[in-house]
Amino acid sequence: MLTGIHVVMIGGDARQIEIVRKLSTLDARVSLVGFEQIEAGFIGVSKEEMDDIDWKTVEAILLPVGGIGNDGFINSVFSSNKIKLEAKHLKQTPESCTIFTGITSNRLEKMASQAKREIVVLMNRDDVAIYNSIPTAEGAVMFVIQHTDSTIHGANVAILGLGRIGMTLATTFKTLGANVSVGDKESASLARAFQLGMKPFHLDDIKQALKQADVVINTIPAKIVTSSVLTEMMQHAFLLDLASKPGGIDHDYAQKRGLKSMIVPGLPGMVAPKTAGKILANVLSDLLLEQTRAQ
Amino acid sequence: MLTGIHVVMIGGDARQIEIVRKLSTLDARVSLVGFEQIEAGFIGVSKEEMDDIDWKTVEAILLPVGGIGNDGFINSVFSSNKIKLEAKHLKQTPESCTIFTGITSNRLEKMASQAKREIVVLMNRDDVAIYNSIPTAEGAVMFVIQHTDSTIHGANVAILGLGRIGMTLATTFKTLGANVSVGDKESASLARAFQLGMKPFHLDDIKQALKQADVVINTIPAKIVTSSVLTEMMQHAFLLDLASKPGGIDHDYAQKRGLKSMIVPGLPGMVAPKTAGKILANVLSDLLLEQTRAQ
Amino acid sequence: MLTGIHVVMIGGDARQIEIVRKLSTLDARVSLVGFEQIEAGFIGVSKEEMDDIDWKTVEAILLPVGGIGNDGFINSVFSSNKIKLEAKHLKQTPESCTIFTGITSNRLEKMASQAKREIVVLMNRDDVAIYNSIPTAEGAVMFVIQHTDSTIHGANVAILGLGRIGMTLATTFKTLGANVSVGDKESASLARAFQLGMKPFHLDDIKQALKQADVVINTIPAKIVTSSVLTEMMQHAFLLDLASKPGGIDHDYAQKRGLKSMIVPGLPGMVAPKTAGKILANVLSDLLLEQTRAQ
Amino acid sequence: MLTGIHVVMIGGDARQIEIVRKLSTLDARVSLVGFEQIEAGFIGVSKEEMDDIDWKTVEAILLPVGGIGNDGFINSVFSSNKIKLEAKHLKQTPESCTIFTGITSNRLEKMASQAKREIVVLMNRDDVAIYNSIPTAEGAVMFVIQHTDSTIHGANVAILGLGRIGMTLATTFKTLGANVSVGDKESASLARAFQLGMKPFHLDDIKQALKQADVVINTIPAKIVTSSVLTEMMQHAFLLDLASKPGGIDHDYAQKRGLKSMIVPGLPGMVAPKTAGKILANVLSDLLLEQTRAQ
Ligand SMILES: NC(=O)c1ccc[n+]([C@@H]2O[C@H](COP(=O)([O-])OP(=O)(O)OC[C@H]3O[C@@H](n4cnc5c(N)ncnc54)[C@H](OP(=O)(O)O)[C@@H]3O)[C@@H](O)[C@H]2O)c1
Ligand SMILES: NC(=O)c1ccc[n+]([C@@H]2O[C@H](COP(=O)([O-])OP(=O)(O)OC[C@H]3O[C@@H](n4cnc5c(N)ncnc54)[C@H](OP(=O)(O)O)[C@@H]3O)[C@@H](O)[C@H]2O)c1
Ligand SMILES: NC(=O)c1ccc[n+]([C@@H]2O[C@H](COP(=O)([O-])OP(=O)(O)OC[C@H]3O[C@@H](n4cnc5c(N)ncnc54)[C@H](OP(=O)(O)O)[C@@H]3O)[C@@H](O)[C@H]2O)c1
Ligand SMILES: NC(=O)c1ccc[n+]([C@@H]2O[C@H](COP(=O)([O-])OP(=O)(O)OC[C@H]3O[C@@H](n4cnc5c(N)ncnc54)[C@H](OP(=O)(O)O)[C@@H]3O)[C@@H](O)[C@H]2O)c1
Repeated sequence: MLTGIHVVMIGGDARQIEIVRKLSTLDARVSLVGFEQIEAGFIGVSKEEMDDIDWKTVEAILLPVGGIGNDGFINSVFSSNKIKLEAKHLKQTPESCTIFTGITSNRLEKMASQAKREIVVLMNRDDVAIYNSIPTAEGAVMFVIQHTDSTIHGANVAILGLGRIGMTLATTFKTLGANVSVGDKESASLARAFQLGMKPFHLDDIKQALKQADVVINTIPAKIVTSSVLTEMMQHAFLLDLASKPGGIDHDYAQKRGLKSMIVPGLPGMVAPKTAGKILANVLSDLLLEQTRAQ
Repeated sequence: MLTGIHVVMIGGDARQIEIVRKLSTLDARVSLVGFEQIEAGFIGVSKEEMDDIDWKTVEAILLPVGGIGNDGFINSVFSSNKIKLEAKHLKQTPESCTIFTGITSNRLEKMASQAKREIVVLMNRDDVAIYNSIPTAEGAVMFVIQHTDSTIHGANVAILGLGRIGMTLATTFKTLGANVSVGDKESASLARAFQLGMKPFHLDDIKQALKQADVVINTIPAKIVTSSVLTEMMQHAFLLDLASKPGGIDHDYAQKRGLKSMIVPGLPGMVAPKTAGKILANVLSDLLLEQTRAQ
Repeated sequence: MLTGIHVVMIGGDARQIEIVRKLSTLDARVSLVGFEQIEAGFIGVSKEEMDDIDWKTVEAILLPVGGIGNDGFINSVFSSNKIKLEAKHLKQTPESCTIFTGITSNRLEKMASQAKREIVVLMNRDDVAIYNSIPTAEGAVMFVIQHTDSTIHGANVAILGLGRIGMTLATTFKTLGANVSVGDKESASLARAFQLGMKPFHLDDIKQALKQADVVINTIPAKIVTSSVLTEMMQHAFLLDLASKPGGIDHDYAQKRGLKSMIVPGLPGMVAPKTAGKILANVLSDLLLEQTRAQ
Repeated sequence: MLTGIHVVMIGGDARQIEIVRKLSTLDARVSLVGFEQIEAGFIGVSKEEMDDIDWKTVEAILLPVGGIGNDGFINSVFSSNKIKLEAKHLKQTPESCTIFTGITSNRLEKMASQAKREIVVLMNRDDVAIYNSIPTAEGAVMFVIQHTDSTIHGANVAILGLGRIGMTLATTFKTLGANVSVGDKESASLARAFQLGMKPFHLDDIKQALKQADVVINTIPAKIVTSSVLTEMMQHAFLLDLASKPGGIDHDYAQKRGLKSMIVPGLPGMVAPKTAGKILANVLSDLLLEQTRAQ
């Protein structure tokens, strides 16, 4: 339990609701900033303004998945106010206070280091990435079903990168009956792909490997599906780029050649906002419980 | 090979193109009726009018998936002409000529029996139903991802009926990480569900069994999800009815209670028209090959 | 509950212990015959002699999996006495009394028909066969691991017959990473094998299909793996025949050619006696509960 | 191809035969030492004595899986001679010559460093460990089937450690229908176990987690299944320790308490010697091809 632990949640979207629900269940005391437009109705939770918060008792500050923007403002879909976290707020908190954010930024890093407060970047954590790989893979399945006119069953699906997302993608498509091939450059990943019943290929051989692909899903944040690779692909192939901007596929060339290709960021929030919120809520509350026990 | 075998294909949709492609590959001689608006370009295939066809040499007549309408006309998405198959055409064919249709109708049965020609109803065949269960299950996956805000992974998914479609649905959702329960009335089906790692329940206990369901997919063409069952379900539950009209769910009551429920027919043609066409093409050409060998 | 329902259990092996345990839990009154050598210690259970039983109150008679032998005696691994069920016993039972046996015999059929008592042959039931397919498949896995020097993963495994056992075998070996092919003569079974990601082949083509097999597992009780099939198989192939005597493989010829081939009956009792007992206990108690409710 | 590349293979067991077969196929020139008792019959392969080898041309020296013993001798199941690799041999090789061994030893390290030759320790490689996890998991399946009297299907199976072996074990047992729980101390591993449909637990909670286990398989080379954990386990539980000596289970205490527990090393060579040989042959030949290309 987090009985009495004071947490400030600033801004966010539907996912934050799941976090509030969980913290309330664990008996924390939650101050919400930027949630005017929703009726919270959770025990121990109150809406407040930045300057009215009793920062001396705050053990954790929760920022949205997008963190703090370059302009210093924090986004909230439930508010039309301009909300800003400032060094002066941080300085009032106890030394043990931790800042939890989805992604970080120079601005946030600087502010935290000045105030000597620790930042936990949730989206950098392996466990969060792996939990998020589940809705990501389901989103990819949905896109592939929508954008092809054959079944996944029996299709040649190439997954590029057997990292945290790639592993889940590969097993998911395999399980749906696709002939999955996996491109990576590590011999251990190629061995794992083989063990899982997929066809491994080294990224050096990507051109040859994608010739017969009906579907390509990329998770590698480096330009590996170049025009020279695309030029040899089948005309009906569908390319889905999940890697963060600018992705790993030469989409301009793909379009020119008439291949269907898309970059789709943020699948978890798009196809399963409730699950995406629960993932953050679970990891956050585990971290808070640990932090509390440690003290 | 079907070298020289004369086949008449009348009307249809995108799926017919796959059948033509296959027949052409097998070297059959194909007369197309109702395909004015497409450029066929297949070897051995020619566009003709009903009355110009050399019926004496016709070994097979291929009707669309929808067969012959009640008004006697045959639908074609590639033509604006009114096309009609008549007894006089059938009577000119050799005795061995077979009529292949997706579904049948009184009108067609009568005409064929008068002309003493055999009808093969493709959609009644177990193998076709099982092949079609693959795109059907993928379509169901797509609908569930689109219409829920949690992942399939970890969701309680109830499949009603472990028949030809139900078996594929159940294994597909299980494989995606759902907690699948299966309702049926046969002890053998319940045993199979258990073997496949699902939770079986007897349809007599459906009310209790659906209380915790996040998703319900029905394949049973009988009203089993009654208002008394619906009334105890969770508010966020999603119900997908695949059984042919009028389905097995009391959708009126579901809507009244604010539950999301949908009837979705024709998934194979919707989510994977190319695969759906290939399924028919493969089964048809196997049947024609057998028929040819038998003679 | 089976409160007060009088059941007589005559002879058997370790599997009977699971049945007694279950019946005792359900509060039945159980008379054991042929269990002198074990300490029963279950509530409501007593050891008796055939002639001391109060047959007038007996609602069910449970025979062993092997039923009644040709000599009329009933086998028990827990007794050295000669035990015999006779028409005179049956005639004293109430009309509703049912005889449950694993397998049946002419002698038993005759006795029951004379006494006008119903027989339920458990091993003929689809649900029992499907539940038993689970330990059977695990037994097959064990034999294949023991008798080959390569992994199942990556091996070409042919399953003959996609019936109740064959379905479980095929999915089990597929799941372990084998390239599974399935031979059957029904187009619906071939379609199911395809849907499950296996390579289907028609039994007419068995000779060609087994040429590349590393492992063959037969469930078809008809001589289909003939010398002419065996002669073309690879030298290191391993053949496991599960079909009931005389099996479906020409083992004499296989041995002559130096191929490893085995007939292995009774896998459930061999590799998982406890599970095998529980399967019978569950089905039996469900049937008794139904019978009791029906009265 | 390895055309003309000179490789010396010294000692070993059945696995070496697969390596020779592969090298011969790739057109290498192989000198065998310690293989008198077998008839090699491979093209490009000849049996030689240590002192007759033309060391100046040797590009690779292949030692057995066990490497060089503490006494300096190299084991060979195909020879009764005493074979010894000495510094004087190494010194005659070209600088580019690499020594490949299964496991290493101080003696070998010293000799190689004196001669300035590189050692590749195959069993330390991630890819080899992952490939070997396949026969290891099959071996574990065989042991569990043999040593329990219930099916794996439906059993509570706890896997300790989600490393290279643990991942394969966990997916294999899950796939066979077990309720798999996974103990690890990394949050990323616990997330992966969740994604794969298993029940994750932190090793701190091992005592509670193993209370309901029917089967425990350990891969962690540290004493984690202590007497205090064992004391709360079910009497029929089966414990299989795969971690290298001394394993992670207090086997003495387990035996005292009457629990079945075993340490089983070397499963790949035991249950699938041919596959185990092919794994080494493939990795080795890939490494040799790379080495050759690099020059
Ligand atoms: N679209 C969405 O909804 C969504 C959701 C989640 C994540 N993502 C994005 O997906 C991407 C993958 O995420 P992840 O969590 O799976 O990351 P990850 O675990 O780091 O995996 C990335 C993979 O890319 C490989 N890789 C990285 N740089 C490479 C290079 N220069 N050349 C070749 N291979 C390279 C890695 O191989 P090594 O391990 O061998 O380096 C690894 O296999 C990220 O860009 C992430 O932002 C998108
Ligand atoms: N929406 C789509 O895209 C789509 C695609 C394909 C099929 N379908 C439709 O889906 C339905 C199922 O097709 P299928 O091929 O799976 O049929 P099926 O193999 O006959 O299976 C039907 C299932 O319903 C059960 N059932 C039938 N009548 C019942 C009753 N009165 N009470 C209880 N259970 C009953 C059957 O149980 P028993 O076997 O024990 O009788 C069986 O489990 C059909 O209506 C079909 O038209 C829709
Ligand atoms: N060794 C063991 O431990 C063990 C355990 C359980 C069962 N069994 C034995 O395994 C066998 C299969 O049992 P099951 O429950 O799976 O039976 P099943 O469901 O009847 O399946 C038998 C299969 O064989 C096919 N078949 C039967 N006769 C055939 C013939 N003349 N030609 C071609 N195919 C034929 C059936 O095809 P159709 O359906 O198309 O006819 C079906 O695919 C039985 O002999 C049973 O006694 C052995
Ligand atoms: N019996 C056989 O036939 C056979 C076959 C192959 C391998 N093995 C043996 O099996 C063992 C595992 O091999 P592997 O390739 O899977 O190794 P691995 O990839 O290193 O995995 C070892 C696992 O143990 C965990 N671990 C290590 N030390 C720990 C500690 N002190 N406390 C808690 N967890 C600890 C690791 O967790 P972290 O990753 O978080 O550290 C990891 O999950 C080795 O001992 C190997 O020799 C035996």
